[in-house]
Amino acid sequence: MRLRGRKGIREAIESQTDLVILNPQEYKGNWSEYFGNDLPIHVELGMGKGRFISQMSLQHPEANFIGVDMYDELLRRASEKARLARKEADQDEADLPNLALALFNIEYIEDIFAPGELERIYLNFSDPWPKKKHSRRRLTHPRFVDKYRTLLNERGEIHLKTDSRSLFEFSLNSFADMGLRMRHISLSLHGEGVNPDHVMTEYESKFVEQGVHIHRCEVMIGSEALRSHEKQLAAQPL
Amino acid sequence: MRLRGRKGIREAIESQTDLVILNPQEYKGNWSEYFGNDLPIHVELGMGKGRFISQMSLQHPEANFIGVDMYDELLRRASEKARLARKEADQDEADLPNLALALFNIEYIEDIFAPGELERIYLNFSDPWPKKKHSRRRLTHPRFVDKYRTLLNERGEIHLKTDSRSLFEFSLNSFADMGLRMRHISLSLHGEGVNPDHVMTEYESKFVEQGVHIHRCEVMIGSEALRSHEKQLAAQPL
Repeated sequence: MRLRGRKGIREAIESQTDLVILNPQEYKGNWSEYFGNDLPIHVELGMGKGRFISQMSLQHPEANFIGVDMYDELLRRASEKARLARKEADQDEADLPNLALALFNIEYIEDIFAPGELERIYLNFSDPWPKKKHSRRRLTHPRFVDKYRTLLNERGEIHLKTDSRSLFEFSLNSFADMGLRMRHISLSLHGEGVNPDHVMTEYESKFVEQGVHIHRCEVMIGSEALRSHEKQLAAQPL
Repeated sequence: MRLRGRKGIREAIESQTDLVILNPQEYKGNWSEYFGNDLPIHVELGMGKGRFISQMSLQHPEANFIGVDMYDELLRRASEKARLARKEADQDEADLPNLALALFNIEYIEDIFAPGELERIYLNFSDPWPKKKHSRRRLTHPRFVDKYRTLLNERGEIHLKTDSRSLFEFSLNSFADMGLRMRHISLSLHGEGVNPDHVMTEYESKFVEQGVHIHRCEVMIGSEALRSHEKQLAAQPL
C-alpha cells in the first residue's frame, strides 16, 4: 500500500470537516468543546486503517474517540471505514458525533492534548522497532509513557495490544520499571476463543486466523483507576 | 520415571546426613546454625532432579542453597547430581558446605522456614496445573506468594522461570494484582543466545534445544531489594 502522493487523497479528507481533523493542535485543551459534551475521551495512537476506532465509537456512545495517525491515506481509509460501519449498523453515515480522526505525528502528542484531557490511550499493534538502537521510538518507551501519564486523567488507563513478543516484553518492563500497576495481562488473548464483544483491529483478525498469539495488558495510571481496581480485587475471594 | 516404592531409595538418602534432610521442620528458624554461617539462604521450591540447585551452590559459595522436593527418588537423584557436580569441578564430592536437600511438601513451606529466614526463592518449571479448578495449586497463586512474602527478608526476591505460557501469564497477574514490583521480565529468555553464566535446569536445556520459549521474571519483595532496584534505574539514562 502506498501511503503518500496519490492524487485526490488530501482533497478527500479535507472535505470531511465533520470527521477528519487536519489541524488538531488547535483543539488542545478544548476537545470537550469540539465534541460538545463532557464524555471521557479515548484516543488510539496509530489507528492504521481505523477499524478498531470505528467499531469502538459505534459500540460505545458513552465515550468520545479520537484516532491519530500521520498519513493522509490512512485517514482517508479510516474515514471510509467509519462511515461504512455506521451504515452497516443501520445508522446515518454522516452522523458520527463521538469520533474524530486526527492527522498528527505521535512523537509530539503533547501538542494536541492538554494534561489530564484523556481518559484512555489505546496502543494497538504499534511498530515494534525491533532494533535496539530504535528502542526510543517504541510507543511504550518510558519517554512516551511519561507523556501519556501527563495527558491521562485520574481514571486514566493505557490499553496495549500487540502480536510482537519483543514489543510486549519491552513494554512490560517499561511499565514495571516506571512503577506502574498492570492488570489483565494476557499472553494469548484469543487462546480460549474470541470474545464477541472484543473489537479487533485489521491486523488482529488476520493474526487470529493464523493462530498468532496476541499479547495484551492494561496499565492503570490515574489514582481513581487504581483505587477502583484495588476495590474489585478486595471483593474477590483468594 | 517411577518416583516411589523402589527398594533402597530411602536407605540411600538416609545415609547422606551431610546433604539430605528428612526432617526439615526441625531446622525452622535455625538454618543459619545448620550451615554454620550467616550467608543468605536461597531456596528452590520443586528442585526436581537437582541440576539447578547443584550448579548454583557450586557457582555461588557466597550463599547457602536449599532444594526442596517431596519425593525420595528426586532427593536421591539430586544428591547424586550434587556430588557429581563437585567431582567434575575437581572438588571434594563429600564437601558440600552450602547445599542442603530437604524432603518436604511445599504446601506447608511455612513449617520449615521462619519469617524473614530466606533471601531468595526460585521457582523453576513448576507444575502449571492448567485446569482452572486447580489454580490454587500453582506455586504462584496468591496464597503461596503470601507465604513467600512472610518468609523472605528485606532483600528478598522471587525468581520465576517456566516454559508454560499459561503459568507465566497467571503468575504475572498474580504478582501485579498483589501490587508486587517485577523486573527483568523475559518472554524468550534464550532468544538471543544462552548466557553462559545462566544455570539451566534439566527441563530448560531440553526446551532450549527444541526452540521452546522460556519465560522468566524477578519479583522484588523486600524493601531493600526494591530500594536498590530503584537506585539502579535512576542511574540509567532514559
